[in-house]
Amino acid sequence: MDATSLLLSAAVPGEHARILLALAFVLVGAKLFGALVERLGQPAVLGELLFGVLLGNLALLGGPSMAPLEASETFAILAELGAILLLFEVGLESTPKDMMAVGIPATVVAIVGVVAPMALGFGVGQVMLPGESWMAHAFVGAMLAATSVGITARVLQEAKATRTPSARIILGAAVIDDVLGLVVLAIIAGVIRAAAAGTTLAASDILAIVLKALAFLVGAILVGSYLSPRLFRRALALRSQGVVLALAMGLCFGFAWLALQAGLAAIVGAFAAGLVMEDVHFEDHLKRGERPLHESLHALTGLLVPVFFVRMGLLVHVENFVKPGVLGFALFLTVAAMIGKWACGFAVPKGVSGVTVGLGMMPRGEVGLIFAGIGATLVLAGRPVVSPETYAAAVFMVVVTTMATPPLLLWSLRRDARA
Amino acid sequence: MDATSLLLSAAVPGEHARILLALAFVLVGAKLFGALVERLGQPAVLGELLFGVLLGNLALLGGPSMAPLEASETFAILAELGAILLLFEVGLESTPKDMMAVGIPATVVAIVGVVAPMALGFGVGQVMLPGESWMAHAFVGAMLAATSVGITARVLQEAKATRTPSARIILGAAVIDDVLGLVVLAIIAGVIRAAAAGTTLAASDILAIVLKALAFLVGAILVGSYLSPRLFRRALALRSQGVVLALAMGLCFGFAWLALQAGLAAIVGAFAAGLVMEDVHFEDHLKRGERPLHESLHALTGLLVPVFFVRMGLLVHVENFVKPGVLGFALFLTVAAMIGKWACGFAVPKGVSGVTVGLGMMPRGEVGLIFAGIGATLVLAGRPVVSPETYAAAVFMVVVTTMATPPLLLWSLRRDARA
Repeated sequence: MDATSLLLSAAVPGEHARILLALAFVLVGAKLFGALVERLGQPAVLGELLFGVLLGNLALLGGPSMAPLEASETFAILAELGAILLLFEVGLESTPKDMMAVGIPATVVAIVGVVAPMALGFGVGQVMLPGESWMAHAFVGAMLAATSVGITARVLQEAKATRTPSARIILGAAVIDDVLGLVVLAIIAGVIRAAAAGTTLAASDILAIVLKALAFLVGAILVGSYLSPRLFRRALALRSQGVVLALAMGLCFGFAWLALQAGLAAIVGAFAAGLVMEDVHFEDHLKRGERPLHESLHALTGLLVPVFFVRMGLLVHVENFVKPGVLGFALFLTVAAMIGKWACGFAVPKGVSGVTVGLGMMPRGEVGLIFAGIGATLVLAGRPVVSPETYAAAVFMVVVTTMATPPLLLWSLRRDARA
Repeated sequence: MDATSLLLSAAVPGEHARILLALAFVLVGAKLFGALVERLGQPAVLGELLFGVLLGNLALLGGPSMAPLEASETFAILAELGAILLLFEVGLESTPKDMMAVGIPATVVAIVGVVAPMALGFGVGQVMLPGESWMAHAFVGAMLAATSVGITARVLQEAKATRTPSARIILGAAVIDDVLGLVVLAIIAGVIRAAAAGTTLAASDILAIVLKALAFLVGAILVGSYLSPRLFRRALALRSQGVVLALAMGLCFGFAWLALQAGLAAIVGAFAAGLVMEDVHFEDHLKRGERPLHESLHALTGLLVPVFFVRMGLLVHVENFVKPGVLGFALFLTVAAMIGKWACGFAVPKGVSGVTVGLGMMPRGEVGLIFAGIGATLVLAGRPVVSPETYAAAVFMVVVTTMATPPLLLWSLRRDARA
């Protein structure tokens, strides 16, 4: 009889069980590795990344394959919720006014941080891929332009430095960078697709993308600043427990959704939601004896943020880097990526640490991988714009810039604190 | 040019955006409806269920269809994580010793709560479905046997009554019920499949199911009680922040996974994990100025538990009940389901409120739906054992027993408190 298998198939839906097991391992492993690297004076996030790399490459050591977990949409969304909550938490620590105060230097840093790596990447493409067209070289440059602010935000938080001027410049520049990256990708992908189809690119499409992104940013800050105190006042009138956490989370996820609709990253929306919310909007609920929002949030981020960083490590396949022809290209690309972002450090105003800003802009994280992935789907003269070798080199660049950031940035932040 | 659509397809993965939007609406809507029904003296969970029903039937009012959200595996898993955290939290408030103290009455209540509804359901099947075989009637009875403890646990928690003797009897009986339900389903499904194949059922398969479930329960309590203080002592030696929450969550999800492997519900494992953990195991971290575990947990449950109850409401399609031939059968089935579980109230020891226990055992929740769903896949004499009409009637029974529990149970708990 197969009553057993019938019951098992009803009682053990594979994905449910997989997520439960993954969460159990990820939470304990991330905490253990985080605590170990903290003992070595490194930020906990580095331990979480390393635990992810170990987990993702267990198969090389004869362990089980993590391919089903890597492919799990639910695990990916849990990780993204972690990144969203992290940026929301970081956004809560600043106001729109704080960000406006660094608006001009942040814009300059963002522009340098896009132009310099693009130029260097274009050069590396010309030297290392002489057979490819200028459009493929430009795409290599575009892959270096992205900034992934998750790692930097986490290190700033661990070092309790989110309210420093350099932190605000990095965070502001990262938001602007997301818009610029979107535009750069749209232009280059558009030019390549037009060339492949034998036509030219319509400037109106590019303009539409830019306008939509800017409309979200300006709208979110203006409408959000107006609505937030009013919504919280109404919600507190309900006199129900936990209403501040529910509304705050609702706005956070709502803004993240709107950002996606505007073509931006969800974390940009979550950061904007955090910016427009001020403690004073829900002071009353503290008087009622409820816990402050940041304390409740802390439990949520404690659960979900490690999922994001462990998953980021999980996606690293070390065997890809030892392929012939990859490692040399990868090293050049990585150096160009690092120098390109460090150049931001020369664009900061007086009194702000250029080294900290340059290092804070360095990690490419998953944004770099998304760019490379899009390049792999673009075809020019019968070949993908991003070949499997270029893709592997891009992954190497992402891994090194991402993994090197936590220790270097923490070192720089400590140096700033001493100065 | 389709640069825009290319970018959008990369930047707006449908499922990510859908989950973000759903979370934003669910959190705010659940809190709003919860606060409104609280004003009417009802438990907040009823408001969350009603909000879910409204959301799920928006299409009838000319609104958007929630079919993609209902089908979303990620949303289902987020909801299940909510149920798991809720039962873990409830389990934390008791010890294995507390549960052993009510072991005998809880077992008696569980047995009555399975036998009485089965007998009544069998009778309803014979009267209302005269053309079907005795096996189909037995399956109708089996559908009434399940208890879904999530609703009850939540109402007990809202009424701050989780440590009362009646609450412990209900919780203990619900765990035993899960094992009994598993056995009943295995036997009836096995008999039907054997009859369809022209063979008989092997008793060894049934025995294997029972032994596996019992091995998990006994093993989880014994091994868990031994390991929990030792693991927390080691973890606290790491002197890293948030280590108690990470380990507690790791054990909770790990036990939930093990319960699934044993053929039981994940929430049974989470409840067992909560039982074996005692505050004294991690007292030290309070001395270090960290927040108590139940406070950190509260933020997590505040986010995820409403997702579970809203989703439960979302799955109710009111248009199914108005089909001809459904409503009469549905009413009989519902009355049988209610009376069958109320019979538990006569099996409680002196000094415990039989009405509270009977009402606490009443909700069928998603367990009843899983049973009905399995019946719909079983075929006997060329017809499904659970026809579409029987399925709709079962859904009605689940909805009524589930939605009626919060107000009735709260009324009974308040009456007990006054006595």
